[in-house]
Amino acid sequence: MSGEVRLAPRLAQRIRANLGRSNMCTTLGITLSGLAPGRCVLRLPFAPAGLQQHGFMHAGAVTTALDTACGYAALTTMGADRDVLTVEFKVNLMAPARGAWFEATGVVQRAGRTLQVCTGELVAHAEDGAPLGTVAIMQATMMAAALLSD
Amino acid sequence: MSGEVRLAPRLAQRIRANLGRSNMCTTLGITLSGLAPGRCVLRLPFAPAGLQQHGFMHAGAVTTALDTACGYAALTTMGADRDVLTVEFKVNLMAPARGAWFEATGVVQRAGRTLQVCTGELVAHAEDGAPLGTVAIMQATMMAAALLSD
Amino acid sequence: MSGEVRLAPRLAQRIRANLGRSNMCTTLGITLSGLAPGRCVLRLPFAPAGLQQHGFMHAGAVTTALDTACGYAALTTMGADRDVLTVEFKVNLMAPARGAWFEATGVVQRAGRTLQVCTGELVAHAEDGAPLGTVAIMQATMMAAALLSD
Amino acid sequence: MSGEVRLAPRLAQRIRANLGRSNMCTTLGITLSGLAPGRCVLRLPFAPAGLQQHGFMHAGAVTTALDTACGYAALTTMGADRDVLTVEFKVNLMAPARGAWFEATGVVQRAGRTLQVCTGELVAHAEDGAPLGTVAIMQATMMAAALLSD
Repeated sequence: MSGEVRLAPRLAQRIRANLGRSNMCTTLGITLSGLAPGRCVLRLPFAPAGLQQHGFMHAGAVTTALDTACGYAALTTMGADRDVLTVEFKVNLMAPARGAWFEATGVVQRAGRTLQVCTGELVAHAEDGAPLGTVAIMQATMMAAALLSD
Repeated sequence: MSGEVRLAPRLAQRIRANLGRSNMCTTLGITLSGLAPGRCVLRLPFAPAGLQQHGFMHAGAVTTALDTACGYAALTTMGADRDVLTVEFKVNLMAPARGAWFEATGVVQRAGRTLQVCTGELVAHAEDGAPLGTVAIMQATMMAAALLSD
Repeated sequence: MSGEVRLAPRLAQRIRANLGRSNMCTTLGITLSGLAPGRCVLRLPFAPAGLQQHGFMHAGAVTTALDTACGYAALTTMGADRDVLTVEFKVNLMAPARGAWFEATGVVQRAGRTLQVCTGELVAHAEDGAPLGTVAIMQATMMAAALLSD
Repeated sequence: MSGEVRLAPRLAQRIRANLGRSNMCTTLGITLSGLAPGRCVLRLPFAPAGLQQHGFMHAGAVTTALDTACGYAALTTMGADRDVLTVEFKVNLMAPARGAWFEATGVVQRAGRTLQVCTGELVAHAEDGAPLGTVAIMQATMMAAALLSD
């Protein structure tokens, strides 16, 4: 994605590595598909490991993708010596999470020194890429913290 | 748990079966440990599949357990011909999710005919069962829906 | 606002009357400034009655405007025999609420038969109308109910 | 309330003065009725200024009382040189706000150095003091900030 060009390649690299070390994300097959200042786009496949009893993606899988997208979006606004923590989030589930894959976009709405307010949207897509509608939206608060080894 | 005695065994049975068909919950190893009218207790092990990059449980795993506990708590207040849908939830993460296992408790605060308001709490425990503190709390809205085959 | 043309004038009339009977809104001086299907814009003046101790508008005043904007936005998607109830909302406060006046916009993100998911944004304005930035955002769930006499 | 004895009288005094300078709270007639470490109880009368169109208290008035109770509860956990800011809150409205008066209780669930997680509950009361049920619950995040002149 062209957005990645706008960020130090080091940050995209750091986020990809970080994502690869997050078992919950690899369990669900979440991958980075776009990154720009204050914005992160992740791809969540229709993953068997994340289904609920009716064969749709579980709210927990949907939330994992949205929280992760919002968290990395916040991280793009911080210095290289900072890590991001989720303070809290709120999710509205708007439609059953069915589709071939899902795109979770996190956007920073306010980038404070300590706290970042983000919104997120998860959109379902058909196999040919056609959007099928919004599955869920998130409103979240992230926090900059001292960098742990990540 | 004695609480289960107070509910029709059929409901506990239905919830166990339902939980077993939810891949996301079996991926994380979530099991039912208590059930009473308006209340559900689940156990989430410290599961490799649900870790984040620092070795704690991911917010998405924590949310999965809390959402499921709140959903089943709401289900105990509905008729046998009803299913439960998550309308929305809000989660505050209060401490890193470390411990040997976690207990997620969902409690119905208002049982309406259509909507149920629930609160949830996830507490970390040491291997010997000693509580280590609250990891996260949830405030959620559930909805009664027509029963799908579950 | 041109948006009002797109709605039955009866609805705009009903909403104005409704707003006039809501003491909390008249206490704060809230007025309707725009209405379109799935969208409502309200104006909140910098009102002495709604200040907090530091001379900014209180979070409760900000919430009143956002909740009302989201509620009327939801009402535009319902039949004339329906009334709107707030199920729940979440507000992030992003900057002190200072300015000459504020514009609260509510937008329906999902219009279900029973539940409507809305987002809201409150923007501060200078006396000459220049926008000063976003003060708060809301994510809310509204519900269609039988019409009470309103 | 006996709880006040447990706090430096100076803090109760500071909170009362602070409350008196918050126009929004005096507009609604909100008063302090209890204070203890990590806990604040406020009284909201059935106030004409805060009604909505059906004659119940407006969600904005309910939120004002809950937000203020949670904020002062958080303040009790901070040093005397600190002020409290609301980061965000989520409110579920559970029943119409009717009654002679209302009691809003804010409780700190996690007292961090920077952030405090609080829950709040607003209960309606009859004129003789009998509780009529819970009207709304809140889950909120507060923040310690440098003291402004208050």
